[in-house]
Amino acid sequence: MSEYAVTPRTKLKRAPKRGVYDKAQVHAMIDEAYFCHVATIGKNGPIVQPTTHWRQEEEIFIHGSNRNGLFQSLIAGEECCITVTHLDGLVMARSAMHHSANYRSVMVYGKVRVVDDEDEKMDSLKWLVEKIAPGRWDEVRGPNKKEMKATMVLALKLEEVSAKVRTGNPIDDEEDYDIPVWAGVVPMEVVKHDPIDDDRLINGVTCNLR
Amino acid sequence: MSEYAVTPRTKLKRAPKRGVYDKAQVHAMIDEAYFCHVATIGKNGPIVQPTTHWRQEEEIFIHGSNRNGLFQSLIAGEECCITVTHLDGLVMARSAMHHSANYRSVMVYGKVRVVDDEDEKMDSLKWLVEKIAPGRWDEVRGPNKKEMKATMVLALKLEEVSAKVRTGNPIDDEEDYDIPVWAGVVPMEVVKHDPIDDDRLINGVTCNLR
Repeated sequence: MSEYAVTPRTKLKRAPKRGVYDKAQVHAMIDEAYFCHVATIGKNGPIVQPTTHWRQEEEIFIHGSNRNGLFQSLIAGEECCITVTHLDGLVMARSAMHHSANYRSVMVYGKVRVVDDEDEKMDSLKWLVEKIAPGRWDEVRGPNKKEMKATMVLALKLEEVSAKVRTGNPIDDEEDYDIPVWAGVVPMEVVKHDPIDDDRLINGVTCNLR
Repeated sequence: MSEYAVTPRTKLKRAPKRGVYDKAQVHAMIDEAYFCHVATIGKNGPIVQPTTHWRQEEEIFIHGSNRNGLFQSLIAGEECCITVTHLDGLVMARSAMHHSANYRSVMVYGKVRVVDDEDEKMDSLKWLVEKIAPGRWDEVRGPNKKEMKATMVLALKLEEVSAKVRTGNPIDDEEDYDIPVWAGVVPMEVVKHDPIDDDRLINGVTCNLR
C-alpha cells in the first residue's frame, strides 16, 4: 500500500483536491520539519504544544521530560493529534477573500506508544540527533542512565493520516482579473544561517555540520 | 497591567525561567507569525489545525469556512488552545541530551467569541489583509455578501496566556566541556523571497508590496 487509508477522521470535507494520502509525500513533509504541534485533552482541557519530532518507518516520534503535563495525558491513553505544517508562500489575490497561503500540512491521529525498551529508546534518540546533524551521534556524549530515566520517548503510528497541499497562483473570480492590482505569490522558506560558535569551544574545533 | 495574570493553565511547571507573561513581548511574538495552531476537542477527539491569525488589541482572530469542522466545535463552546511558535535556532551541545532549540512560543486558552456584527467582521478582515500587506485593503475587491456569509471570524481573548522563550548557547554539564566536538547554535529564520507575478497580471502592474 503506497497510500494511507481514509478514515472518518482523515476524510477531507473541504477542498478535497488538496488532499494527499501518498505515503512518500507525507514522509517527506514530516521529515523536512524540525518540529510539530501535539494536541490532546489535558487535565485542564485541550492543549497544543510545539515539540521536536522525528520519523522512523511508519511512526512519528516525540520526546520530553517525564514531568511534562501533556505527555502525562498522552501516556494515560488520551487520543492525540500531531500536526506538521510548512508555510511555502503568501498568495496575493485581486480580491480580499481569495488571498490564501501555499502550504503543506500533515495531521496524524491516534494514541501513542511509550518506547520503554531501553535499546529501542536509545536507538530512537540516536535517530533524532542524526536527523538534525548526520554523524553527530558518534561525536557527542550519549545519554546516561539518569538522562534516560528523566526522558520519555513516545511513538505515534502513521495509520490515520491526512495531508493537505496548496501550491501555485491565486484563483480569482473571473470578473476580478481586470482589477489593476498586483497579484501573485510571495514565496516563504525556513532557512538556516551560518552556525555560531559556542563561547567555550575548545581551540581548534571547527564546525563540521553538513 | 503590563503582564498577563498567571492561572492554573498558564503556570509553567517546567523551565519557569523561560516563562514570559509580558504583554508587549507576547504581542510581538503573535504579530510576527503568519499562522498559529488551533486545538480543540472535535467530534472525533482532539484536533489541531494550522490557520492564519491576526491580533487586534487583546484578542487573537482566526477565520475560516462556515463548514470547517474544528470551527464548528469552537462556536459550540468548546475550550480551545491557540499556539504560536517561532523556531529561532538549533542548539548543538556536547552531549546528546543537552541538544535543544531556541524558540519563542505563545499559548492562549479560552473560548472563542463569534464576530457576528457585520461592521466589526468587515473591519476585522481588513486587519488581516493589512497585516499581510499594508495598504492592500484599499487596492483589492472587498468581501461581498456571499463571501461574508460563507466565512466565520472568531476572536479569542488574550486573558489566559503564557509564553516561553529560549535563547543563547547550549548549556552542557561542566565535565562535558572538554569533549572535542563543535557546539553552538544554528540560527533559523523564516524568510520571504522575491514575489512571483501571477500569470494573468495586467500589463504595467508591478509589485508594490512593502
